[in-house]
Amino acid sequence: MYEKVALIGIGLIGSSLARAIRQKGLAREISIATRSADTLAAARELDLGDIYTTSGAEAVENADLVIVSVPVGASGAVAKEIAGSLKPGATLTDVGSTKASVIAQMEPYVPEGVHFIPGHPLAGTEHSGPAAGFAELFENKWCIFTPLPGTDEGAIDKLKAFWEACGSHVELMDKEHHDKVLAIVSHLPHIIAYNIVGTADDMETVTESEIIKYSASGFRDFTRLAASDPTMWRDVCLHNRDAILEMLSRFSEDLASLQRAIRWGDGDKLFDLFTHTRHVRRSIIEAGQDTAAPDFGRVPKKD
Amino acid sequence: MYEKVALIGIGLIGSSLARAIRQKGLAREISIATRSADTLAAARELDLGDIYTTSGAEAVENADLVIVSVPVGASGAVAKEIAGSLKPGATLTDVGSTKASVIAQMEPYVPEGVHFIPGHPLAGTEHSGPAAGFAELFENKWCIFTPLPGTDEGAIDKLKAFWEACGSHVELMDKEHHDKVLAIVSHLPHIIAYNIVGTADDMETVTESEIIKYSASGFRDFTRLAASDPTMWRDVCLHNRDAILEMLSRFSEDLASLQRAIRWGDGDKLFDLFTHTRHVRRSIIEAGQDTAAPDFGRVPKKD
Repeated sequence: MYEKVALIGIGLIGSSLARAIRQKGLAREISIATRSADTLAAARELDLGDIYTTSGAEAVENADLVIVSVPVGASGAVAKEIAGSLKPGATLTDVGSTKASVIAQMEPYVPEGVHFIPGHPLAGTEHSGPAAGFAELFENKWCIFTPLPGTDEGAIDKLKAFWEACGSHVELMDKEHHDKVLAIVSHLPHIIAYNIVGTADDMETVTESEIIKYSASGFRDFTRLAASDPTMWRDVCLHNRDAILEMLSRFSEDLASLQRAIRWGDGDKLFDLFTHTRHVRRSIIEAGQDTAAPDFGRVPKKD
Repeated sequence: MYEKVALIGIGLIGSSLARAIRQKGLAREISIATRSADTLAAARELDLGDIYTTSGAEAVENADLVIVSVPVGASGAVAKEIAGSLKPGATLTDVGSTKASVIAQMEPYVPEGVHFIPGHPLAGTEHSGPAAGFAELFENKWCIFTPLPGTDEGAIDKLKAFWEACGSHVELMDKEHHDKVLAIVSHLPHIIAYNIVGTADDMETVTESEIIKYSASGFRDFTRLAASDPTMWRDVCLHNRDAILEMLSRFSEDLASLQRAIRWGDGDKLFDLFTHTRHVRRSIIEAGQDTAAPDFGRVPKKD
């Protein structure tokens, strides 16, 4: 599909892309760049590509598709580094979880004649690093593009076909709307999960070993999101600040109201909320976005 | 193990107990009581027991083990109804998620010579009702007893052996400590999950269909707990109020501090918290309390 794909950043997403490209034959050559010598060695050990370098500029030479998969706070620095080496006519995309900030950081460096198409595959696990990737990660997941007005339609269609070949469904969206949608479906849940795990870990009257031991009664569900990559999530918080603060403020307002219902014993209000939320789960299952199996289909542990 | 077991309430927990008792041969006879004629008919249809009645008093006649599995707010009414029919020497237990309140409700009705041993199996799924139960629900789960001082040791040992035969590990604990531990590992997570699903459902700028569609990026994890039985959770909130309010207040305090770090761009603070929470997940996996498989081992959906 492409002659040469350059992957800048080879963590969970970059390495899953490398595997998917290989498995589905989407490029003749894969070049891999990462600043960390250790990560690069790990990528080489895993045989993820054809060219390995710590220089982004070197990796993008002659590439007709460049995919930047780094924490969003590093997007500007990467764009600056590679800008002068991008091939005219190449497509430049990214996988960042915030789009307005990534565009503001990268766009000023994009040379004339290069098609910059910001992207965001809604795919991942709580694991990170090149060894955590797998070719099937993008299957039946959404990938959102937030192209700037006037972007070449042919380049968009080709990138769309690439992601579809990886198994994804592509949607186009305005960058601000993307950032609001992701703030509620992804950023707020992660922040709340990190917060509750932090709160539980700070108790004096309940020991950490009790929290671990009895975690299956609800708490453990949150620990998965709270095990996600700290650098990635620090950057998301810093780079989608306004939308996240809005969602946090709505969440806290709702929680204060719920807390008041508990304090004053307003059982009807509690029952109404707890009934209403059930239908959201049903809709998600009907939309094929989660398993109907009890407990996520977790396999019970045996002694 | 017991001659006759009476199950008062035949929802997810009661019906799982019925199946486990049958499968493992833990009683000669099972009597089932529930106030709802529909639920009773469903239990009969599923062939869960030997005797079916809408009268708790009738069900407990001659039973040497009585297990009350009703929303905690109904415990007192059940105790009052069955008290006069309990066989001398019988063991009376329950499965409620709050213990101080259940003891306060039931204990005044327990006749001399009946062994009242409050219990709480930390087991369940987001599904409810007699059809949702399964015999393996209690396998490798904890069951906490909060016996009153002076309770007959032989009766405790026998009930312990019963739960162990169901596959559980039994722990003894003080009722107040139980209520604090459960407030943090179970009640707070459920309340937070209900709240975030409510917040997401109330957005004006993001449609419900977008929230459903993109839910796999984090949100869907919370919808599982928020699909739990509303009556059960209303009662938990009303009957473990003080411990829950304490946990909510700590959670909100921590969230305000996290929100401030986001507002002021304190990346180091965010990174520290997000790194620290990772080790909690690792400890839970090492303790065998969750799967190490990415994404809870969810089976990816195919089109």
